[in-house]
Amino acid sequence: MPAPFDYGVLEISDEELARERATYGALADAVRRLAETSLRTTVPDDVIEQARERIDEVTALLAAETVPGPLGVQLTTGGGVRDYGNAVVGLRNPVAPPLAVVQDKETGSASAEFELNALYEGPPGCVHGGVAALLLDQLCGEAAAAGGHPGMTGTLSLRYVRPTPLGRLSATARLARVEGVKAIVEGELRDTDGQVTVTCEGVFILPRWARELIDQAPPKYE
Amino acid sequence: MPAPFDYGVLEISDEELARERATYGALADAVRRLAETSLRTTVPDDVIEQARERIDEVTALLAAETVPGPLGVQLTTGGGVRDYGNAVVGLRNPVAPPLAVVQDKETGSASAEFELNALYEGPPGCVHGGVAALLLDQLCGEAAAAGGHPGMTGTLSLRYVRPTPLGRLSATARLARVEGVKAIVEGELRDTDGQVTVTCEGVFILPRWARELIDQAPPKYE
Repeated sequence: MPAPFDYGVLEISDEELARERATYGALADAVRRLAETSLRTTVPDDVIEQARERIDEVTALLAAETVPGPLGVQLTTGGGVRDYGNAVVGLRNPVAPPLAVVQDKETGSASAEFELNALYEGPPGCVHGGVAALLLDQLCGEAAAAGGHPGMTGTLSLRYVRPTPLGRLSATARLARVEGVKAIVEGELRDTDGQVTVTCEGVFILPRWARELIDQAPPKYE
Repeated sequence: MPAPFDYGVLEISDEELARERATYGALADAVRRLAETSLRTTVPDDVIEQARERIDEVTALLAAETVPGPLGVQLTTGGGVRDYGNAVVGLRNPVAPPLAVVQDKETGSASAEFELNALYEGPPGCVHGGVAALLLDQLCGEAAAAGGHPGMTGTLSLRYVRPTPLGRLSATARLARVEGVKAIVEGELRDTDGQVTVTCEGVFILPRWARELIDQAPPKYE
């Protein structure tokens, strides 16, 4: 495993980033469509078998050259964050819906509108309770960062008010207050009609080792 | 959206279930391998473009016949649960690792050993905090059910003790106590070395409408 917070800084031009986003984004979108279709298909077994073989061929094609492990996170020379592999927002990660989170530094908040399909089901027709937790954890972390208090999740408490039907949803989170090294964030998930279905409170903390690292060598990207 | 707890009972033979599991399981595994490889590939853009076109062709093949919406959950005449679409344990769901959860009705507990790869990353090299929440929510729900108190998540509180490196992991949960309609479950996630990385407490409740339904018409599957 890489050292914690070993984010590195990547020298990359805006043009190259745009090219990456277009190429890799289209590939991940294609895999997402395949994943959802493969979940819901009722074609005959011989067609499934044929599809499986063709999928294995494409996997072999892409496996010819890969990075050795997980993608990690890089800070770009342009001041951005390259988190293509993130399980919630990762452009290249077919497991991620992905969420396009909008951070507001003025208010220390983060929000996203998105669609969850059959891949995110728990109870029949509804979003898995754990998926709601997954998305809200990311939203809360981004709200803490937007408010100037980035950190890792220390605690996260969720309250499920009502079931969340699959479909168009939205989520918001905001930095509520700061107590010493703790950033307290509140958030909620809303259904298509705008009704709150899940609320949460998270405490985000920059661990001591990270604070010490920053004290010793302030990040170049600030 | 289907009515809550509209699980239905599916007449299906053990042989047919075994065939489904083999066919659909192999398809989902192939899509999982493709998803992880597509995330980590560094092949040239023209090869990515070629892969994308071939993926779209396979998607079209599988899209010829599909169920109209999410898979839902069915109870089988053999007494099992057919939850192929579940985002954590779903055999057919490429987003699910999937977890093979073992329920112990004697102790009211549930456990799973599994591997999380690059698709589940948050901080560099580590499991996304929200993914830990996703998996623990499912484990806790299954522990409540194993203990004779099935329900939906009412609240879930997580404490992140230390980062969880990607790799071989395990999770356990157990019904701690019952207070009226509330089943209180405790669980934890452990890293490869068996160290606890995340702990949680969840309250699982069978909603009033579900209790009323069961009072009016006890499920045939009991």
